[in-house]
Amino acid sequence: MLSLHLQFFMSKQENIHPYRHLLPRESKEQLLGQRGKVLWFTGLSGSGKSTIAKGVEEELHNKGFYVVVLDGDNVRTGINNNLGFSEEDRTENIRRIAEVAKLFCTNGVVTICCFVSPTTAIRAMARQIIGETDFVEVFIDTPVDECEKRDVKGLYAKARRGEIKDFTGINAPFEPPLNADLVIATQGKAIADSVQQVMQYVVPIVNNQ
Amino acid sequence: MLSLHLQFFMSKQENIHPYRHLLPRESKEQLLGQRGKVLWFTGLSGSGKSTIAKGVEEELHNKGFYVVVLDGDNVRTGINNNLGFSEEDRTENIRRIAEVAKLFCTNGVVTICCFVSPTTAIRAMARQIIGETDFVEVFIDTPVDECEKRDVKGLYAKARRGEIKDFTGINAPFEPPLNADLVIATQGKAIADSVQQVMQYVVPIVNNQ
Repeated sequence: MLSLHLQFFMSKQENIHPYRHLLPRESKEQLLGQRGKVLWFTGLSGSGKSTIAKGVEEELHNKGFYVVVLDGDNVRTGINNNLGFSEEDRTENIRRIAEVAKLFCTNGVVTICCFVSPTTAIRAMARQIIGETDFVEVFIDTPVDECEKRDVKGLYAKARRGEIKDFTGINAPFEPPLNADLVIATQGKAIADSVQQVMQYVVPIVNNQ
Repeated sequence: MLSLHLQFFMSKQENIHPYRHLLPRESKEQLLGQRGKVLWFTGLSGSGKSTIAKGVEEELHNKGFYVVVLDGDNVRTGINNNLGFSEEDRTENIRRIAEVAKLFCTNGVVTICCFVSPTTAIRAMARQIIGETDFVEVFIDTPVDECEKRDVKGLYAKARRGEIKDFTGINAPFEPPLNADLVIATQGKAIADSVQQVMQYVVPIVNNQ
């Protein structure tokens, strides 16, 4: 009976003050038919983070999942267009990205973040902001000499010529994650195979059916 | 024939370099069955922005639309938790919100932003970031004496006691939008009626069926 009274009281309250709360995460996840997660891709420049992310986005999309990718292209030109590359700004860069990813994730979106995020400390910050349950660390593990050989954006060459200071892998360290949820060793592997490796891990944890 | 050759060339390129692009906005909108838009709610503190937004979120959700609300509660505690209330920080506050809203909108989300955004200049900045086509200005038009009477958060009382500097409506100006897409005059109107007024405007423009 108490419970009935309480229900009556609450619905009366809702009548007087309707729309008091944002819809909970569970409602969004139900609508989308999935669970929100943040796949945090870490790895060297040129390791394949964005390429693999685009593949995972496409494959998940084709299965009906709603996915958003955050990468340098849509973040450095937008929300973070007033940040440079000082240590302070690099930290603020990752902090804002993690906060944006959290907004997507808590609204039920499968969110893929592609950022070098070279240090244990900076990834710990992202994990702390996003929360242990939602944060999935994916190490795109490509050796630096392979990344330098690919050098898609010509950044390694610039770093070698001294035109970029503190370039991760050349004159700034990359601390490989020791307890990544998933490690994708890309060398000698087709992109489609790396994508499938991520898919096998991700589909079961985002599936809400 | 040229077109066929081109298609062949492109599909060959895609085979060599698969997953070169993020999925376009149209694919996300198709998946969600809606069009992305940003409903930018402007109005005094206590005018009813968040309450009406929560109502619109719920009503749209019940029709199967995917909606995200950005307001002080989820933004000031997250992405903007390192900003104060200086003029510079207020501008940066709105700039970041507009950039986040743009990320949601260009991924097909119906995004509702609830922020006082008191000046023509600051709303023009948001519009410029989000883009003319996607930005829908909604003026929640409640007279200041009515907002002060409600004073849900006790902020007007504080401002009157001089405990808040530059409080919009008391000792800082609110510049009413002159060309809002939608004006919701809330005084003497039930919340549900304001919500319905927004719904009548919004459903046709986000509908993608």
